[in-house]
Amino acid sequence: MLPKDLSLYLIVDPILCGGHQQCVRLLNNVIPCGVNIVQLRAPKWHKGAIYVLAKELLAITRPNGIPLIINDHVDVSLAAGADGVHLGANDLPPEAARELLGPDAIVGYSVSNYAQLERATRLGNKIDYLGVGPVFSTPTKPDHAPPIGIQKLRAICSRSVHPTVAIGGINAQKADEIMAVGAPDGLAVISAICGTEEPAKAARELREAIEKGREMRKMLQKLK
Amino acid sequence: MLPKDLSLYLIVDPILCGGHQQCVRLLNNVIPCGVNIVQLRAPKWHKGAIYVLAKELLAITRPNGIPLIINDHVDVSLAAGADGVHLGANDLPPEAARELLGPDAIVGYSVSNYAQLERATRLGNKIDYLGVGPVFSTPTKPDHAPPIGIQKLRAICSRSVHPTVAIGGINAQKADEIMAVGAPDGLAVISAICGTEEPAKAARELREAIEKGREMRKMLQKLK
Repeated sequence: MLPKDLSLYLIVDPILCGGHQQCVRLLNNVIPCGVNIVQLRAPKWHKGAIYVLAKELLAITRPNGIPLIINDHVDVSLAAGADGVHLGANDLPPEAARELLGPDAIVGYSVSNYAQLERATRLGNKIDYLGVGPVFSTPTKPDHAPPIGIQKLRAICSRSVHPTVAIGGINAQKADEIMAVGAPDGLAVISAICGTEEPAKAARELREAIEKGREMRKMLQKLK
Repeated sequence: MLPKDLSLYLIVDPILCGGHQQCVRLLNNVIPCGVNIVQLRAPKWHKGAIYVLAKELLAITRPNGIPLIINDHVDVSLAAGADGVHLGANDLPPEAARELLGPDAIVGYSVSNYAQLERATRLGNKIDYLGVGPVFSTPTKPDHAPPIGIQKLRAICSRSVHPTVAIGGINAQKADEIMAVGAPDGLAVISAICGTEEPAKAARELREAIEKGREMRKMLQKLK
């Protein structure tokens, strides 16, 4: 089930973390720092290795009541007993994934433009939330679509019937503004946590910036 | 269900075929030429595209009573309604795949050495057949294990409790010898059919060489 609060959405990439063990250690360190949901994304890894890592990460997330979902691989999610998947336009269709995963699993879907937003809206309860972006350019995904910026993020999020998570080049310095002006339900980060020397410190700073952004958003709404 | 006759096992790679449409056309052309089972293998393709192609290929194989299985992706097999999967050492564990696919699906497993053969033997009915090789060096899989040759193929096949399919660098010129001396239940080919100008002709030549190899094997057995 999708948590009500999606505000700090962590994507862990085991290569960016430095390997399997480092990824496990990182998650243990950052889980207490206000992470609401975790996605395991390892596009360069074989599924056997992702499966083993997913089971180990679930032993951390599950006792904390935090969902762990798998990027792309419905079979790994099913086999590891994870909480769902995140799908892009090139992956299995969300309808097929929902059919395999059942009604209680989390199915996320990536949206970069209005055409994809329309498709997402038609998908109704086949999907649970949208990943919207990339907001900014990001080194984590070299083949990403052109960055949409904060104004277009705001336009897409305001039209979405699903909860929204902004993604792409987000860090603690920009988090408050994106949260306040773009107005998504949450922020997804990879390198802003996995690529830092002190991931727990980075997660706490992001959490603070998110809360500040939420306050700013309330103030902006009163101004209207 | 695994066919009793595995002798001509075709692996189609859509990139090697020249694309989606060319792959569909090739399969239509070669299916009447004595192909017993088909595997769709597209390691460079996104799953969305593999899923769409798998459904189209199933519309060709199913009316002919020929199974179509998917390399690696259990989720694509389930979503497309294919007949099973072929797994390597780096993919999801066969036990996990069997659990997801059920008892009637075909689960194949790659074996390159005696240690993997022992693991395969312990897997019992979690798997249905072994892919044994690479017999020879092959350009189709640049990161393959060292070629095992015909003698080691024979040793592995003779010890296997599962049906065996030889793979790796097999063409019509070598097919009779591999079938006779290596004594697998079948031969798997990719480039010997997909990489040729006349795939149907290549398939017929392979079929002939396989039958010749079977006769040679019977003669060899009588000599003992």
